[in-house]
Amino acid sequence: MKNKVYLDNAATTPVDKKVLKAMQPYWSKNFGNPSSLYKLGQNTKRAIEKSRKDIADILSCAPNEIIFTGGGTASINLALKGVMQYFKLEEDKKSHLIVSSIEHPAVLNTAEYLGELGYEVSILPVNVDGLVELETLKKVIKSNTTLISVMMANNEVGTIQPIREIGKYLEKINKDRENKIYFHTDACQAAGFLDINVNKLHIDLLTLNGSKIYGPKGIGILYVKQGTPLNPLIHGGGQENDLYSGTENIPGIVGLSTALKLVNNNKEKENKRLIKLREYLVSEIESKIDKTIFNGHRKKRLPNNVNISFIDVEGEAVLLYLDEIGIQISVGSACASKDLDPSHVILALGCPYEVAHGSIRFSLGKHTTKKNLKYVMKKLPGIIEYLRKASPIDADVKKLKGDCLKNSLSMNKIN
Amino acid sequence: MKNKVYLDNAATTPVDKKVLKAMQPYWSKNFGNPSSLYKLGQNTKRAIEKSRKDIADILSCAPNEIIFTGGGTASINLALKGVMQYFKLEEDKKSHLIVSSIEHPAVLNTAEYLGELGYEVSILPVNVDGLVELETLKKVIKSNTTLISVMMANNEVGTIQPIREIGKYLEKINKDRENKIYFHTDACQAAGFLDINVNKLHIDLLTLNGSKIYGPKGIGILYVKQGTPLNPLIHGGGQENDLYSGTENIPGIVGLSTALKLVNNNKEKENKRLIKLREYLVSEIESKIDKTIFNGHRKKRLPNNVNISFIDVEGEAVLLYLDEIGIQISVGSACASKDLDPSHVILALGCPYEVAHGSIRFSLGKHTTKKNLKYVMKKLPGIIEYLRKASPIDADVKKLKGDCLKNSLSMNKIN
Repeated sequence: MKNKVYLDNAATTPVDKKVLKAMQPYWSKNFGNPSSLYKLGQNTKRAIEKSRKDIADILSCAPNEIIFTGGGTASINLALKGVMQYFKLEEDKKSHLIVSSIEHPAVLNTAEYLGELGYEVSILPVNVDGLVELETLKKVIKSNTTLISVMMANNEVGTIQPIREIGKYLEKINKDRENKIYFHTDACQAAGFLDINVNKLHIDLLTLNGSKIYGPKGIGILYVKQGTPLNPLIHGGGQENDLYSGTENIPGIVGLSTALKLVNNNKEKENKRLIKLREYLVSEIESKIDKTIFNGHRKKRLPNNVNISFIDVEGEAVLLYLDEIGIQISVGSACASKDLDPSHVILALGCPYEVAHGSIRFSLGKHTTKKNLKYVMKKLPGIIEYLRKASPIDADVKKLKGDCLKNSLSMNKIN
Repeated sequence: MKNKVYLDNAATTPVDKKVLKAMQPYWSKNFGNPSSLYKLGQNTKRAIEKSRKDIADILSCAPNEIIFTGGGTASINLALKGVMQYFKLEEDKKSHLIVSSIEHPAVLNTAEYLGELGYEVSILPVNVDGLVELETLKKVIKSNTTLISVMMANNEVGTIQPIREIGKYLEKINKDRENKIYFHTDACQAAGFLDINVNKLHIDLLTLNGSKIYGPKGIGILYVKQGTPLNPLIHGGGQENDLYSGTENIPGIVGLSTALKLVNNNKEKENKRLIKLREYLVSEIESKIDKTIFNGHRKKRLPNNVNISFIDVEGEAVLLYLDEIGIQISVGSACASKDLDPSHVILALGCPYEVAHGSIRFSLGKHTTKKNLKYVMKKLPGIIEYLRKASPIDADVKKLKGDCLKNSLSMNKIN
């Protein structure tokens, strides 16, 4: 029964056995410091450069455009602080940062910090499906805009953003601008499923990490397009092109590149399988449980993400009941779950608190089977019914849906 | 023959098998995100808190004073930038940072960056043995001094600094000062050998990492004494008391705490063994090879460190010849070895370039045996002799030693 049905792959994934095997030689055998001049050091240096090349091939970039960091959050900090702080703050010429309202806390809290330092920060609203609309973005861009950060796919509701469309638009307007706008995308959730060819995406910076693609935790990369101005995040021995110093985590680096290759090789086939499972789960929930609101875009969403609000119940209660019978799901993101505040993403879609409080994320993975989902559907309707009986609330779903749309439209009004 | 005699344990150590075993359950079995509310997440959270408690016990501090980071360099960046940037820069009131001249590049380059931002930075000279002298430090301290960073033991020459003496002095003068002086020590090299009880040391911040104590790379800690003001280094989901965000590297954390416990349990016995080996190597070299200069303090040095300059030869050449016969040693630190510049540490002792260029570090470890050192001594004299024959230089060692002392005295003159 224990850990029987793990449906929280967006929070983190177990490490693939092939990844562990690839890391194995670098713990106690090929353990040399890559900065050392003897063979034991140069061998690990070669292992790092091989991993860098393998990742660069998948991203269609040059190996020296790949910077290894300590994870997704570290990469995001390097991208945002790195670009913004490269440009000195001057009284009459503040650099301007735009981030979407449904970014991960790594982006939102770094943006807030930069705002405290004196940089100008705009939070870009999304529509009721969680989509960034290019027309809205156009209105937020200003002459002093320096960096835009929009995630490739959202971690909570799974909505896939039009990164390529935004990237192409920025490339076009950059031709006539005095200050170039740089474009970063957080692809931590997307890397396992979507095409991360950086040329097709027309981006300058891309973050991805190991812990969401069956790789190790504590390792990530930042793609930095040649010529992108960037301050270091961590100063020291000059590793990683002087941007992220510290003795390299060789097993982590080899693990990340192995994991990325594995998900990339099997992407197309696995996406098809997951979309079928996702649609099965959605149709089962919507046909067997009433008073639900589907969150995120119906089609433009990650193959593994289902996010649904169960009205009149608390998500946390559902989570704990499901955990008792060996099913792991999530309310909001793992990071946000500590404070029990409602999900900032669901609220940013325009949904009232009642909708956010009842939202549940099921994130499928490569170990998820139809049998798993059948087990969920055998248990979930009873749990929801039981909790609703105990609930003093009886909300009007139709009105809530209307409120979502109304709020969303009002949040998207930009003068 | 391959990797037969690894004498570069100060650059990095192989991971202990017991450490690997302790990490094992956290890759693919207990892999949950510690921020998740279900048991699989709460179990990993408990594993982290157990590791934090184990480390805190060794340091004699409270568990919430231990912050996990991505390594030694990351911890140093958090300590130095964290404390200095907590205090806003004002035109007429610049905070002042003091670091010793023989610190690791992680400290020196972070200090340089803070200097560029506008903070006042002083580089504290050391004496010819590589020792920070309290009397010199007293002259450098000013009314606006905010932070002092002195490493516990040097990575290149092994000199052990009087951290406790400095800590007690600062504690005393802080009673009468308007601005408290905070005290950080980089204990990366020391943690495997010296007592790191933070109360006895009278310090506010201490850095140590996994990669020098037979633990994994990519993981470190910063001890932060309760009440020490600190800005976050990495913003995001709020992990590690909001100072170093990002999904926790659970295997790394468990590995680091296991490694620290292992070295701590065996410290006394192993130190005695290593000191015997160290003294054997030093006396063999000094009796069998002429024209050498011993670097660092004869007694106040790490049990595993031997640093000797072989006059008239290039350290790199010795390194490569030794590597060919399966002996790994280092010239300067691993980090500095990339650029082939002479060691900044040897130069900071007052030694001329000729002395720095010929310096070799042998750093012993728990796998080092007397047989290993005998093998070194069977080969080393011949290599030095061979290289000297090919060298056009024939320096006067007595004069060089005199120059070291003279330069050192002049560098220590502070008005």
